[in-house]
Amino acid sequence: MQKEKDMIFGLRPIIEAIESGKEIEKIFIKRELGGELAQQLWELVHQMQIPVVKVPMEKLNRLTRKNHQGAIAYLSPITYQHIEDIIPTLYEDGKNPFIVVLDGVTDVRNFGAIARTCECAGVDAIVVPMKGGAAANADAVKTSAGALHIIPVCREMSIQKAVQFLKDSGLTIVAASEKAVQSYSEAEYKNPLAIVMGSEDVGISPEVLRLCDQMVAIPILGKIQSLNVSVAAGVLIYEAVKQRK
Amino acid sequence: MQKEKDMIFGLRPIIEAIESGKEIEKIFIKRELGGELAQQLWELVHQMQIPVVKVPMEKLNRLTRKNHQGAIAYLSPITYQHIEDIIPTLYEDGKNPFIVVLDGVTDVRNFGAIARTCECAGVDAIVVPMKGGAAANADAVKTSAGALHIIPVCREMSIQKAVQFLKDSGLTIVAASEKAVQSYSEAEYKNPLAIVMGSEDVGISPEVLRLCDQMVAIPILGKIQSLNVSVAAGVLIYEAVKQRK
Repeated sequence: MQKEKDMIFGLRPIIEAIESGKEIEKIFIKRELGGELAQQLWELVHQMQIPVVKVPMEKLNRLTRKNHQGAIAYLSPITYQHIEDIIPTLYEDGKNPFIVVLDGVTDVRNFGAIARTCECAGVDAIVVPMKGGAAANADAVKTSAGALHIIPVCREMSIQKAVQFLKDSGLTIVAASEKAVQSYSEAEYKNPLAIVMGSEDVGISPEVLRLCDQMVAIPILGKIQSLNVSVAAGVLIYEAVKQRK
Repeated sequence: MQKEKDMIFGLRPIIEAIESGKEIEKIFIKRELGGELAQQLWELVHQMQIPVVKVPMEKLNRLTRKNHQGAIAYLSPITYQHIEDIIPTLYEDGKNPFIVVLDGVTDVRNFGAIARTCECAGVDAIVVPMKGGAAANADAVKTSAGALHIIPVCREMSIQKAVQFLKDSGLTIVAASEKAVQSYSEAEYKNPLAIVMGSEDVGISPEVLRLCDQMVAIPILGKIQSLNVSVAAGVLIYEAVKQRK
């Protein structure tokens, strides 16, 4: 869980934090919160695309005993970027882009471990969804061995649109799926590349899968039908590293 | 943590559990516990090589409010085997043995994730130390997705002796070490093989490292100097799978 030092309570302090450029991980707002300040906060969070969860008053009271006025924000320990800003810069710098997209990895430790692998493997950026993904909280940062402070993380409203953007930017989209026929080691990773990993339970969503150029599986020789997602990501990422060097 | 249903309290119940063949993960015994039954338990645990931790009375009282008489045992959710029994059988069955040795992996979730990878990759057995390794508790079994109930786990008094036995049995011993000069993808995994992974903090112990035939590293292109051990194990194990198929 996140600590109280990463919390901001009350409408005006939260508005001020957003306006001063602080990175907000998530805001909990009381259902049907009214008034002028609440209206102002709503406009800001829509404009800035900050994840908001509407909750009953009791939930907020459980989060803190302080005077929260119906709104609690969590500061993000990392600074998010946007994939649209990163890809052009990579090309301008003469690099061969290598992106990892997490389509709904929900476990904080898996997220941290994948970020660590990405940083070690020289991946240029990680793309995560605004909603439905693991929080980049203190536990994620710890499991990442600090990688989340180093590697650019792009939090995008729509993973589908982000993958479409990567495709339009010339990247080959490789999807990890247990149902794939092709083995991961037979795929092609040399060109500008995005590897997409799905969530722990349902994998990659169908609308994202449809955009992928190659679907690859890691061979399973035992009875258990899938690897842990952070291990699977490591196997694919290092196969790509080997081919791209 | 382990649940109370996996605990046995009191000297006589613990002795009976051991004598009836129940697998004991670990026993906590009060420092300087005397008496005939205690003596009998001590002899049994030495004979059966069951890990014992001597603790102050307060520690035992914190573990349970029941009448523990100075001794609490945790049942193991898995049944351990011995590597000396496994290797000959593998050869007799015409197999090309593939063993993974964990020289002090201490994190329960890393242990579980590695067991899952091993089961998926068709590894024949995992060797872990009697002392100093992660407990094969309910969390480990859960993280392993049940793999710990499927793949043979050998709990050995001395990892050094176990690795010596594997070497004498004709296995090539490949050690994962960040300090290695050789890349993991240049090593040879086709023959009977044991991959040795070290602990999260200090890696493989020097006396085990001395027995290894090849030391390999996974190339690090970023600032963070090492991968998570379960990810590193996955990368090495699947490189071996690829070469051995």
